[in-house]
Amino acid sequence: MATNQQVKLLGFAGSQFVARAELALKLKGVQYEYIQESLTNKSNLLLKSNPVHKKVPVLLHNNKPICESLVIVEYVDETWTGHPILPSDPYHRALSRFWSRFIEDQVMPPVFKAAWNPNKQEREKGAEEAREALKILDKELKVNGKFFNGDSVGFLDIAALTIFYWVPIIQEASEFNVYNGDKYPNLGKWGQVVLNDPVVKGVLPPRDVLLSFFKARFQSIIDSK
Amino acid sequence: MATNQQVKLLGFAGSQFVARAELALKLKGVQYEYIQESLTNKSNLLLKSNPVHKKVPVLLHNNKPICESLVIVEYVDETWTGHPILPSDPYHRALSRFWSRFIEDQVMPPVFKAAWNPNKQEREKGAEEAREALKILDKELKVNGKFFNGDSVGFLDIAALTIFYWVPIIQEASEFNVYNGDKYPNLGKWGQVVLNDPVVKGVLPPRDVLLSFFKARFQSIIDSK
Repeated sequence: MATNQQVKLLGFAGSQFVARAELALKLKGVQYEYIQESLTNKSNLLLKSNPVHKKVPVLLHNNKPICESLVIVEYVDETWTGHPILPSDPYHRALSRFWSRFIEDQVMPPVFKAAWNPNKQEREKGAEEAREALKILDKELKVNGKFFNGDSVGFLDIAALTIFYWVPIIQEASEFNVYNGDKYPNLGKWGQVVLNDPVVKGVLPPRDVLLSFFKARFQSIIDSK
Repeated sequence: MATNQQVKLLGFAGSQFVARAELALKLKGVQYEYIQESLTNKSNLLLKSNPVHKKVPVLLHNNKPICESLVIVEYVDETWTGHPILPSDPYHRALSRFWSRFIEDQVMPPVFKAAWNPNKQEREKGAEEAREALKILDKELKVNGKFFNGDSVGFLDIAALTIFYWVPIIQEASEFNVYNGDKYPNLGKWGQVVLNDPVVKGVLPPRDVLLSFFKARFQSIIDSK
């Protein structure tokens, strides 16, 4: 990377979506400035850079904003050489994109419903939907105890990290149970490989801090009822 | 393309998602066999090729299935040379991906709610949400009366075709009103450019057939209440 390039990441500590962007940057060895945002008092830079969603992560590359975690990961892969994130073969790229959308659209919304919906019945419905989606993922994805692309962290591993690391903490904080590696053996083995990667370890926020944060969030939802 | 390559598209006449895949194939000049599916009696080939969603379009390239319309469009772009679909510059690729997700996640679900929800209040809520999303699209996207990438049909034009062609027909059939080109001047001008493209015209199902189909669908929702 030319030294006159400026890379900034607007983030929020503990965010699973920010972790995806950080992981992509670290895999490529890109130097960047991390700018901590406050979710209750968003900066003008964030509001100006992501006027549509007003959310982190936002990558600023020479002042150009790129928003949405998986869009950022693809951007990073296409902009910097080094560690390949998407596979080179179009068919495997398509599989990575298909399954990342499945995680975004079919796994995470039910998990969030199971965790944060004020209505207990809705939470139970969310948990059931999440279990169904995870069952499909476990059955259809044959990762065979390696990374999804084989020997190194790639696009789908980055997208799935949220299942392997965040979901167990969120469910512990919110008193539901959708995921554990024993129940979904393929996902379980895959998750172990991903979580043991040293670069992945470097972007994971401390478990106890996340657990306290999510416990407080769950309590505030229960209290507000 | 080597002559021993086999390309099949599983589709359903009138589908906006199938039209995206067809448009990508036609832009590249790829010869393919179109296989018409029945939505009420899905073929074994469809169920086997897309076990997760059981939906068209599915592209079969030498028997390998690729599912999800926009994943197919990227696959086609990466597999065949000729007409470029995604822009070459990573920043503009990121913009195309960001806004295509916006259309998928923020525009179309409210449109479908406005059209097909059995509850009138929910339909009205959907229409309002769709108007809000279209307002953002009209304000933030400066297309300046050309295609999104400039001089020829690209990824975001393909994703947005559903707004320009299908939404006006769906809303006419379902008696709501979220979109017209006068109300959203930037979208309106952009839509005219896209709809006037000869290759685009070649994949659009006849308006009157679509209108009858959607009218019948809307009536069945009203009747089933």
